[in-house]
Amino acid sequence: MALSDLGEFGLIQRIRAVTGEPPEGEVWIGDDAAILRAPGGTILFTADLLVEGVHFDLGWTGAEDLGWKAIAVNASDVAAMGGTPRRALVSLAVRPGLDADFIEGLYRGVGACCDEYGLAVAGGDLSRASELVVSVAMIGNPAGRRVVERRGARPGDALCVTGTLGAAAAGLALLRSGSSGRREDLDAAQLRPTPRVREAEVLRRHLPSAMIDVSDGFAADLGRLCAASNVGARVDAAKLPVPDLTGSGLALDPLELALSGGEDYELCFAIPAARAGRAASEVVAETSTPVHIVGEITEQAAGVQLTLDRQTRPLAPAGWDHFSP
Amino acid sequence: MALSDLGEFGLIQRIRAVTGEPPEGEVWIGDDAAILRAPGGTILFTADLLVEGVHFDLGWTGAEDLGWKAIAVNASDVAAMGGTPRRALVSLAVRPGLDADFIEGLYRGVGACCDEYGLAVAGGDLSRASELVVSVAMIGNPAGRRVVERRGARPGDALCVTGTLGAAAAGLALLRSGSSGRREDLDAAQLRPTPRVREAEVLRRHLPSAMIDVSDGFAADLGRLCAASNVGARVDAAKLPVPDLTGSGLALDPLELALSGGEDYELCFAIPAARAGRAASEVVAETSTPVHIVGEITEQAAGVQLTLDRQTRPLAPAGWDHFSP
Repeated sequence: MALSDLGEFGLIQRIRAVTGEPPEGEVWIGDDAAILRAPGGTILFTADLLVEGVHFDLGWTGAEDLGWKAIAVNASDVAAMGGTPRRALVSLAVRPGLDADFIEGLYRGVGACCDEYGLAVAGGDLSRASELVVSVAMIGNPAGRRVVERRGARPGDALCVTGTLGAAAAGLALLRSGSSGRREDLDAAQLRPTPRVREAEVLRRHLPSAMIDVSDGFAADLGRLCAASNVGARVDAAKLPVPDLTGSGLALDPLELALSGGEDYELCFAIPAARAGRAASEVVAETSTPVHIVGEITEQAAGVQLTLDRQTRPLAPAGWDHFSP
Repeated sequence: MALSDLGEFGLIQRIRAVTGEPPEGEVWIGDDAAILRAPGGTILFTADLLVEGVHFDLGWTGAEDLGWKAIAVNASDVAAMGGTPRRALVSLAVRPGLDADFIEGLYRGVGACCDEYGLAVAGGDLSRASELVVSVAMIGNPAGRRVVERRGARPGDALCVTGTLGAAAAGLALLRSGSSGRREDLDAAQLRPTPRVREAEVLRRHLPSAMIDVSDGFAADLGRLCAASNVGARVDAAKLPVPDLTGSGLALDPLELALSGGEDYELCFAIPAARAGRAASEVVAETSTPVHIVGEITEQAAGVQLTLDRQTRPLAPAGWDHFSP
């Protein structure tokens, strides 16, 4: 069967059938990071590939930006489990035409992101190849025994997101347009995403019931959180932290960017409504990152709904599929 | 600077300068796996990339063989630290033209190798790409607090290897030749290498002083063990377990294959001479894998030497360099 017919989700289901079910206390495929029980405690374990021409274009992505982002996207996965990223392995497949200075620049970006979030690169692998691939694996520690999974959201929970949704997609559109009018904040959202490591460290003290990082678009990732938790959600479009495109020259709908742009690396979480306000204000106070309460978790039968101008419609998970036609 | 001028070793040195030095008790770059101190104990952490056209050719490597090998080469790295491989993440960059059955076959091979050695796949990542890349990261447990590093060999130690050296390279030569006369044992050495996980579990009870897996050729990997331990070595060519090429039609020198063939995934270790015989016989008794005492560790000033027909010559590390011209 062709991958384009099966799709990424279908392929993952077939892979799950081969890899089997984890023992009690472990989570393998299906969350931001795997949860493993080592002899001495719980470990979070995650990996992400960045492929030239798919995830980045060296026409606008510098070596240091690429190294930063390769670490950031993995750190975001660990943070989304309520964990602290600790060590990474960076494996590179290097194509002809890239020289040692490029690789060293990439590692400088890797090192800068590691320094910023208190983690370190412990090794990796090198190969030649015909296109550049950056493959990072990362381990992290949960806080004590508590891991925040995707499953766990309950009807009545407040639904929250950190930061802004859609800015990375706006930055990508600007970079692709070749426009000379730059918006540094939008470029940075695309090229140097900030994993919400510190925000997660504050949040986990307030016991969110479920959390995911927004990597494939808010609608898609919220859909995953709801599916894993067997709940629905009601999102108030007016409360979504959409990007300000003023002066960017982009003729794009900020709401559309926020719903399906992707690469935000913000945290989307559910938390009992009574604790939501205090959790949000402590994150703001300790990290300066805003937290928006954008809706609530509902019963599964209600589906995932978006309310806009008093109209309510289903929020379809129009996310990224690597193998869609 | 061009990578071909700098070479893989030079590039790794530049990367080390960027990534910094590990804290007390950890080992990052420079051994088969990184040694990390987690809150609850020591973790081994390693990663290997397999790139189409560099590490394998789908003309003779089947999907299941590829999946098996991707796990085996990482399990071998954990075994070479005296550890037990536990969990892997498998990330795939998939090129057009490969379908879901191929990917499923690859995961069946992954699963077969995991089952054979008691580990499991806990997740990974998927992307499209223009060539197939299999990137595996693995964590393992050491036995208690003891890890067998490359450094630690002492003059007077016996130098030993498991199994046969050069069979995988002979298998590759046969597969490449397109010869219709097959030698299943040589093909299998190339396509389905057997990581020495059980052998390492027996060996570590006998406290080897240093160990490495033979992935880039015996001469190259012995050179690494000696460099890390600040010792020399004397190897008796007559004692090396070279492959039997009888009937293969290959006009190759078995000794040359054993010294620089690569992809053997055998264990090369140093152990105090008084314990070598018993360690070797217990490995044979418990695993049926032969262990050969092929020489001894000497003072560093003596260099790494090969004795052949009463002549002694330096054993140059003619190993694989991904970036050599």
